[in-house]
Amino acid sequence: MKMTWNNLLSCTMLALAIHAGCPAWAQNLTDYVDPFIGTSGMGHTFPGACVPFGGVQLSPDTDTIPHNVGGRYQPEVYSLCAGYRYEDPTIVGFSHTHLSGTGHSDLGDILLMPTTGPLHLNPGTADAPGTGYRSRYSHSSETAHPGYYAVTLEDYGIRAELSTTARTGIHRYTYPGEGERHLVMDLSHGIYNYEGKTLWASVRVVSPTLVTGYRITQGWAREHYTYFAVRFSRPIRDYGCRESVASAYQGFWRKFSTGHHFPEMAGRGLSLWFDFDWADAAADDLTVQVALSATSAEGALRNLEAEGGSFDGIRASAGAAWERELGKVSAEGTEDELKMLYTSLYHTMINPSVYDDVDGAYRGLDGSIHQADGWNNYTVFSLWDTYRAQHPLLLLMHPGRARDMALSMLAHQEQSAHGLLPIWSLMANEGWCMSGYHAVSVLSDAVSAGIGLPGDRALEAMDATATVPYLEGLEDYMKIGYVPLEASSTGASTTLEYAYDDWTIYRAAKLLGNKSLAQKYRQRAFSYLHLFPFGENFAQARYRDGRWKKNFDPRQTYGEGFIEGNSYNFSFHVPHDVAGLIGLMGEKQFLRQLDTLFSEPLDPRYYADNEDIEESCLIGGYVHGNEPSHHIPYLFAWTSKPWKGEYWLREIMERMYRPVRDGLGGNDDCGQMSAWYIFSAMGFYPVCPGSGEFVLGAPFLPRMTLQLEGGKSFTVLAPGVSSRNRYVQRVKLNGKRLTRRYLTREDILSGGVLEFEMGPRPLKRGAPRQADLPYSLSRE
Amino acid sequence: MKMTWNNLLSCTMLALAIHAGCPAWAQNLTDYVDPFIGTSGMGHTFPGACVPFGGVQLSPDTDTIPHNVGGRYQPEVYSLCAGYRYEDPTIVGFSHTHLSGTGHSDLGDILLMPTTGPLHLNPGTADAPGTGYRSRYSHSSETAHPGYYAVTLEDYGIRAELSTTARTGIHRYTYPGEGERHLVMDLSHGIYNYEGKTLWASVRVVSPTLVTGYRITQGWAREHYTYFAVRFSRPIRDYGCRESVASAYQGFWRKFSTGHHFPEMAGRGLSLWFDFDWADAAADDLTVQVALSATSAEGALRNLEAEGGSFDGIRASAGAAWERELGKVSAEGTEDELKMLYTSLYHTMINPSVYDDVDGAYRGLDGSIHQADGWNNYTVFSLWDTYRAQHPLLLLMHPGRARDMALSMLAHQEQSAHGLLPIWSLMANEGWCMSGYHAVSVLSDAVSAGIGLPGDRALEAMDATATVPYLEGLEDYMKIGYVPLEASSTGASTTLEYAYDDWTIYRAAKLLGNKSLAQKYRQRAFSYLHLFPFGENFAQARYRDGRWKKNFDPRQTYGEGFIEGNSYNFSFHVPHDVAGLIGLMGEKQFLRQLDTLFSEPLDPRYYADNEDIEESCLIGGYVHGNEPSHHIPYLFAWTSKPWKGEYWLREIMERMYRPVRDGLGGNDDCGQMSAWYIFSAMGFYPVCPGSGEFVLGAPFLPRMTLQLEGGKSFTVLAPGVSSRNRYVQRVKLNGKRLTRRYLTREDILSGGVLEFEMGPRPLKRGAPRQADLPYSLSRE
Repeated sequence: MKMTWNNLLSCTMLALAIHAGCPAWAQNLTDYVDPFIGTSGMGHTFPGACVPFGGVQLSPDTDTIPHNVGGRYQPEVYSLCAGYRYEDPTIVGFSHTHLSGTGHSDLGDILLMPTTGPLHLNPGTADAPGTGYRSRYSHSSETAHPGYYAVTLEDYGIRAELSTTARTGIHRYTYPGEGERHLVMDLSHGIYNYEGKTLWASVRVVSPTLVTGYRITQGWAREHYTYFAVRFSRPIRDYGCRESVASAYQGFWRKFSTGHHFPEMAGRGLSLWFDFDWADAAADDLTVQVALSATSAEGALRNLEAEGGSFDGIRASAGAAWERELGKVSAEGTEDELKMLYTSLYHTMINPSVYDDVDGAYRGLDGSIHQADGWNNYTVFSLWDTYRAQHPLLLLMHPGRARDMALSMLAHQEQSAHGLLPIWSLMANEGWCMSGYHAVSVLSDAVSAGIGLPGDRALEAMDATATVPYLEGLEDYMKIGYVPLEASSTGASTTLEYAYDDWTIYRAAKLLGNKSLAQKYRQRAFSYLHLFPFGENFAQARYRDGRWKKNFDPRQTYGEGFIEGNSYNFSFHVPHDVAGLIGLMGEKQFLRQLDTLFSEPLDPRYYADNEDIEESCLIGGYVHGNEPSHHIPYLFAWTSKPWKGEYWLREIMERMYRPVRDGLGGNDDCGQMSAWYIFSAMGFYPVCPGSGEFVLGAPFLPRMTLQLEGGKSFTVLAPGVSSRNRYVQRVKLNGKRLTRRYLTREDILSGGVLEFEMGPRPLKRGAPRQADLPYSLSRE
Repeated sequence: MKMTWNNLLSCTMLALAIHAGCPAWAQNLTDYVDPFIGTSGMGHTFPGACVPFGGVQLSPDTDTIPHNVGGRYQPEVYSLCAGYRYEDPTIVGFSHTHLSGTGHSDLGDILLMPTTGPLHLNPGTADAPGTGYRSRYSHSSETAHPGYYAVTLEDYGIRAELSTTARTGIHRYTYPGEGERHLVMDLSHGIYNYEGKTLWASVRVVSPTLVTGYRITQGWAREHYTYFAVRFSRPIRDYGCRESVASAYQGFWRKFSTGHHFPEMAGRGLSLWFDFDWADAAADDLTVQVALSATSAEGALRNLEAEGGSFDGIRASAGAAWERELGKVSAEGTEDELKMLYTSLYHTMINPSVYDDVDGAYRGLDGSIHQADGWNNYTVFSLWDTYRAQHPLLLLMHPGRARDMALSMLAHQEQSAHGLLPIWSLMANEGWCMSGYHAVSVLSDAVSAGIGLPGDRALEAMDATATVPYLEGLEDYMKIGYVPLEASSTGASTTLEYAYDDWTIYRAAKLLGNKSLAQKYRQRAFSYLHLFPFGENFAQARYRDGRWKKNFDPRQTYGEGFIEGNSYNFSFHVPHDVAGLIGLMGEKQFLRQLDTLFSEPLDPRYYADNEDIEESCLIGGYVHGNEPSHHIPYLFAWTSKPWKGEYWLREIMERMYRPVRDGLGGNDDCGQMSAWYIFSAMGFYPVCPGSGEFVLGAPFLPRMTLQLEGGKSFTVLAPGVSSRNRYVQRVKLNGKRLTRRYLTREDILSGGVLEFEMGPRPLKRGAPRQADLPYSLSRE
């Protein structure tokens, strides 16, 4: 049958119907989402409730106590990034802010925990839960659904349910029939918690049903302000706290018992309890709505006012919001495939998250309160990860939010003492995590997409960022073309990242007609060349005087000048000039190195000490959990053997993304891993964001449709695709044979159908036509 | 010569001329002010620069290091309240906020210190000044003048000069010709400093001449936010800091040296240095203007913008402002008398101080930013002290400011988690110092003065305050008529204070026509009666069940139920019903106790352990440094022997107020001691604020004239008055014989002349006519 627009559309409708109808339990797309995927092992996701891109992520924390490391107690940094670890036997409580899938930790703000019986104001320990307010729980009592989480706290017999709006979390606690009932609010709780992390906490009991306050923490976010307003469904009967301090002159406070029924409690280690009036209670449930704000208690109150509601109402709205957002992708596949797809899609819509009040007031990087007019301020930009696929996906699917995120980055740059765009921005702080200045990639891509950004302002911010001399070796880089080891122990990978970033500035400058900047950054984009010794094929670190690092080992990640990736991986990090790189190595060597990377097992000594790599995360020496590898399987598209990429892409999809709780092959990294999955499932990927191109790989599902803004849709068909039928035989775009090995943004945004014909054997296509190859700077 | 209005006016003019002409060095009234009076011994005043009621008090701090108390290092609370102690051999630096004359300490915000040679970022110790940035100095190099202070820092050869506007401090440092030149800014410095007092400090280098930042301290003010903006007259060449911390993940900050040339420094113990570009310097001086704000860095910037200027311009304006305010009093006297008078007047115009931004934004007691429209927000209300004479003086002389202060108190009450008016308010905090709720006295007096306060709102706030059950024994007091020892260890004095305070509420309610509140508080005003056992003459503490404390000693201050005063003093604390008290004791006993109080030396064992009483502060058992005694010498006016008061008033004036640095007989207490002096020098005193009466004593100077708002003036004449001629023989008001023993506010505000005829012997006048006696509740 010849595909025409009309019968394609019918196909799509049919497919939708098929999806909507099966399996029986899946009444909604949200039913495919399993928030527990990634909560064990490497994923670092949290199972709690949030709305798409919401500022509040209300989720259980299972432990945060410092761990005994060689006799010294140190806060747990890595394995508890999300606050929740599936293996942990107890729940400490429910806190309102969480990072999704990161490799470093913070937040866990404003912990609530309902309890019964004797009052505890400290969490206790997992091996002796009775010594604190924490409780045992069973996974069988847990329910997690987009926008909803519930668990039974076994030690208390309390059913705890959570839901959220963008700026509030709502808790419904159903207590057992008898016994003393308490609610604990521990403001000294946190993720990555250490003695003294809470610089100050302060709480006011405003009325029997309203409490406001704030705390300041010094965590990964150096100065993190969380204001809150809490509304209770029942009046407070009694309350008190541990460690409320008076002024430095305690004596003056002798008039009161500041620890009991004193309506303005404050201190560094503040932990509070509230008892409620149950006298007129027909039921045993307490609803608590907690609004957050980074600006002020009044901001939190306004957020509470604007987003207040009943538990069931809020839960329904949260579910509907997810249903709407997930509905932008429809697909055909097995239950497991759809589970993985929609859970991935879900994970691409948690971070970045809204970070402003309902009236647009937000805390800026300068610590001042600013006003966003006509846009929303966002935070949590894990840019070293997310510039690769997460932001390109958001740009395609959420252009309005992508614009606001770009504006948030520009505001950040304006408020930066350094004039720097965000590197790892969280909660009005720069976290400085990882290398490069990849916000320029996101901005360049956004400028080229024409979503209404002020281009010249963006270019100014990009140029300002790329010229801060004291940023990790940048002064040297600008002078000698690379970051020497003296300036940075990861100078080699940083050089490669700068070179790509600079290319994105070049593209934006060219587009905006700024010839001098275009010229400057075009030149800088070739800096990668300085890392390849003449006649050699691995990027290598060097010293300021030009000497190369001695005893170079391309498989070694540490000490060789690279970060989260060895030279074997990083030598391919020239996404903007793949042809140039191939020219340097020769295609034969290029392919040889790719083959070795994927197929030759990495000796365990290279990763034994690394907490974020396990053997199961490896495909040869390819580490999917480390983002610098993400574009590598697509590099085959520039060669005469694209089917090799098709093979490995299927391997990665199957082995690194399994719809079970420990099924993620690495930290989800604020959606980057998941966005990789979404693109790769469709058979294309933004190897070089800023080029406007999506390089073809191999589709994973028989059908996927993107519902685009403005009503258009883009459908990818791959009938019969399977683990066996993993090889692309032919590609048609809107019914016409596509020899190009990439799509343009226009191809997608115009709507249409991309059809892959799949087969069990590679289609050996011979040398490609130059015109069919994706972008390379050298060929421009 | 018969006095007529016209020749009185001529006399006044003549007197003014005499004053203006002598002594030769006194070109201005400000020349009479010696800011060093009180900087040694008990006064606790500071010598630095400020403008009248200004929010910035820029002054040298001579030590703040914790002192070794029995092997434990404790912050110095008492003797260094003002930051400066005349005896100290070194100056640590110059900080921007100081309390004037308090008995407890805090502030000392944002310390600057210019240095030369090797850089030190810690203060060092007084016995080894070379180990830190502090410097030795000589008093001979010091100059202090209202609005101006200067000193030579001997270790560096730097001349330091200070001046202020209301919200900024300006420094001019003239460095010696050669050597390395530094400026240190130590944000861990403070008065009453202890390890960890600075919760957080953060600084941004905005441009080579502009730095902003803030710090939060937990001192007496539990949460004290000080934002600042600093403008330098020369560009910064280099800078750095000690103890700037990164985030909790220090590793991410490896990109930078955060301690050097890193424009966003932060931490708990932050101490910074700045070096400047002197290349183009024709001179060796650096001018630094520091604006403060409690709301935000932008607030500080706006204040800097609005109040910015040259050092000489600001110094001239500050001097002119003082000259204008001091000019509201003109007087005749010896150089020493005028020095004491104008220095006292100066000390009545430091606290309360302005606590808002130029645009009216201010930090409220609730920690939120509020907007004062059409008024200025004030802070530092040492009300237990200042309700007595300082606020009555301000109400007479500065009715506009008095209104704003009352509005500030009402805002405080509205923002209070307790619904309480201020007790000891400082920097948007309640300091809870001392007992009672004397803001009601200030408000009642202000309401009765008709200065445009919202009366009903004031009454509502007063009633709300006086009914907070958990305020120091108030629940008991409302039930059983006194504060029992179980509820407060100072229940007896607190009861006496509540009773007076309640009387002021009664007066306001009566004036405003609120009969039920009037009735309620009239009854409560008699509560003092519950402390006098039947047939006994000393107020005594009792238990909840009515029993009296055993082994009562009326001379003992501690453990008897009184605060800062023994029963000997406190039994007279019924200012609103002196007649009632006399009725209780009988006049004979009343006078006997007064005589004993003033003439019988107090055994040293009663005050040996007390840091704020020395033998020189005592007149018999009368302790002028403790405010509960302040009205006592005026109580003779209710008896048949008023000349006894005339005798003791002169003694107090001469012995407790000497125009030398250790000449104050007690803490100046935010102007209360000084306001007592101003009133007493005129021969009258507000024994019972709220009554609108000023009880006559004995004048101290031959002439004093108050220039009142609206152009009227009130002159007190006492020709020939002297230590010998201390007894009042006759009094005329506007030429008419005055038999009344008090003035009304109207008498004063109408303008006129009060003439005392003085003599060396008491005029024994016999029993007074009831109609001539000042107010008493029992006689109402």
